[in-house]
Amino acid sequence: MLGVLETPAHLAPFQQALGEGLTKVRARFDSHLRSGEPSVDELCRQVERYRGKMLRPILVLTCGLASRTDQSRTDLAVAFTDGHIVSAAVCEMVHMATLVHDDVLDEADIRRGERTISALRGNEAAVMLGDLLIASAYDLCNTLSSLETSRIVSNAAKVVCQGELLQLHTRADWAMTEATYYKIVSGKTGALIACACELGALHSQADASIRGALAAYGDKLGIAFQIQDDLLDLTGDEKVVGKSVRKDLEKSKLTLPLIHHLATADSVQRSQTIAILEAIDHNTQSGGEYATLIAQLGQTDSIAYASATAARLVKDAKAGIAVLPKGAATDVLHLMADAVINRDY
Amino acid sequence: MLGVLETPAHLAPFQQALGEGLTKVRARFDSHLRSGEPSVDELCRQVERYRGKMLRPILVLTCGLASRTDQSRTDLAVAFTDGHIVSAAVCEMVHMATLVHDDVLDEADIRRGERTISALRGNEAAVMLGDLLIASAYDLCNTLSSLETSRIVSNAAKVVCQGELLQLHTRADWAMTEATYYKIVSGKTGALIACACELGALHSQADASIRGALAAYGDKLGIAFQIQDDLLDLTGDEKVVGKSVRKDLEKSKLTLPLIHHLATADSVQRSQTIAILEAIDHNTQSGGEYATLIAQLGQTDSIAYASATAARLVKDAKAGIAVLPKGAATDVLHLMADAVINRDY
Repeated sequence: MLGVLETPAHLAPFQQALGEGLTKVRARFDSHLRSGEPSVDELCRQVERYRGKMLRPILVLTCGLASRTDQSRTDLAVAFTDGHIVSAAVCEMVHMATLVHDDVLDEADIRRGERTISALRGNEAAVMLGDLLIASAYDLCNTLSSLETSRIVSNAAKVVCQGELLQLHTRADWAMTEATYYKIVSGKTGALIACACELGALHSQADASIRGALAAYGDKLGIAFQIQDDLLDLTGDEKVVGKSVRKDLEKSKLTLPLIHHLATADSVQRSQTIAILEAIDHNTQSGGEYATLIAQLGQTDSIAYASATAARLVKDAKAGIAVLPKGAATDVLHLMADAVINRDY
Repeated sequence: MLGVLETPAHLAPFQQALGEGLTKVRARFDSHLRSGEPSVDELCRQVERYRGKMLRPILVLTCGLASRTDQSRTDLAVAFTDGHIVSAAVCEMVHMATLVHDDVLDEADIRRGERTISALRGNEAAVMLGDLLIASAYDLCNTLSSLETSRIVSNAAKVVCQGELLQLHTRADWAMTEATYYKIVSGKTGALIACACELGALHSQADASIRGALAAYGDKLGIAFQIQDDLLDLTGDEKVVGKSVRKDLEKSKLTLPLIHHLATADSVQRSQTIAILEAIDHNTQSGGEYATLIAQLGQTDSIAYASATAARLVKDAKAGIAVLPKGAATDVLHLMADAVINRDY
């Protein structure tokens, strides 16, 4: 994620430290997945292709530094403890497991420009590989001396699954409320990002107020991130986004622009939109529905509403971390919050 | 499992204690899965229908008592610690997650005489429900004061997945060896049963020799159990077994009778058998293949060989626990080992 930002000069030592930390995280991730069974190890290597922005490891490490008062020193990498490196690798494993399992769920063929595990090796291998990533994540957590990391991770993982299940339950529920949408996305996306931020603070021995502030920052960042993801699925170009798009509509997942539109449109507009959504849901569309839908959403300013909501969440996320010590890492948390919504990939 | 055994009179206090323990395990299992979100909780209640013999909880509790020198006292239930109850619920959650995910893999429609979650609610709900069970299992583990339980569980869960992935990799590999088969079944079935047995000992503060002996007993029991399951899939009646049968052949999973047959048959027999297996694999069978296959297996005594192998494993499992204190619970471990292979369901 930082790679695409213009990095101000005073952040150079931070970026150097982050790079060193991430190298250790990748090494720990890979070595912990190695089983000695060639066919299993080969499948695990396929997961490397899923490695994207490493948002969660970056957040563990950045929040770890941002919890410290000496975050502008030049030898920052020494501040990373084994707990930070392990937590970062664990969050990435859990995240990759959800990606691998999501691809089974979504029947997606493309992820980060490459064919998915489920498309390449079948759903059975994808389900089991996801399960192996989850088991390996806890196994790695359990190399630490305290239960606290595993507790935070397992609680987040539960909330992620509850969010995903709620989303399945509300599919094609055209009367879904914004409150339910937030419950879903705070679960399926916010929980693990909040977990990453809190673990960074935990392993820097931060006090409860900092841990809480960073967890809240992560939750808001996660929701904003998901709103932006949903917007890209709705309006983005597969080649730029790097994964299959229009999946939410095909699966009748209600996202914020649609929820806003259905709640604010007049009854004629609403009926027209629902007719389009049901045609897509029942796979009886005749072509041109997507363009019509985008035009409909424009009439109620619903895409702008979703963008503005994500921007407000980012603003709130930044305001909530005023409690942190000042310095390079805290500055980066502000830049990262902005970057979540300023992206088209 | 004990329900179907003729229980000798001296085991009555044990059976009473076990019943009390299992009631606590069920209560802990159910309460820990409750989320407060009605749609999620309703789906979790569907899992209750999967609750079968409760072999793993029974093993945690029985091994917990068998590790003690006072296992023939009459107020045995007081010997169950919170660690025993939690471990038993955790093992059952992990086991149920594998059942729910296996049903996605196998496209099975029937489990314990009922329609599967995947058939009822779709693969997406089944994948997520399995993931929720796994997250809940670790979350429950993390209510204990030490990491040791979670360590044993996460290590076992990793080995289970590695076994499942190896099985997928060797599908339709007609040259598969017995050594590979044992690696698969010791992983996918033995590891979690061994984990249950070891956790029983751990929470009775048993020494390393007893923990090791019970883990080895569980591994052998698990392999014998899987051989028997594979035999039931090959030769059993769906109505008696209570789940879809002939799945292994449809999915070209090599099991012990087939591996033995292919390794010992003469070249003519072998070619005939492979032709049948490939017809089933490519779904081009014309009918009558199953009966022919059973007849072929009979010519090399391969079904008898697999049964004898399971019986030998049961004998070894019993011999290996000679180190345990004598008493009612240890007697039950012997009876359970026998019951694993003396069943047609």
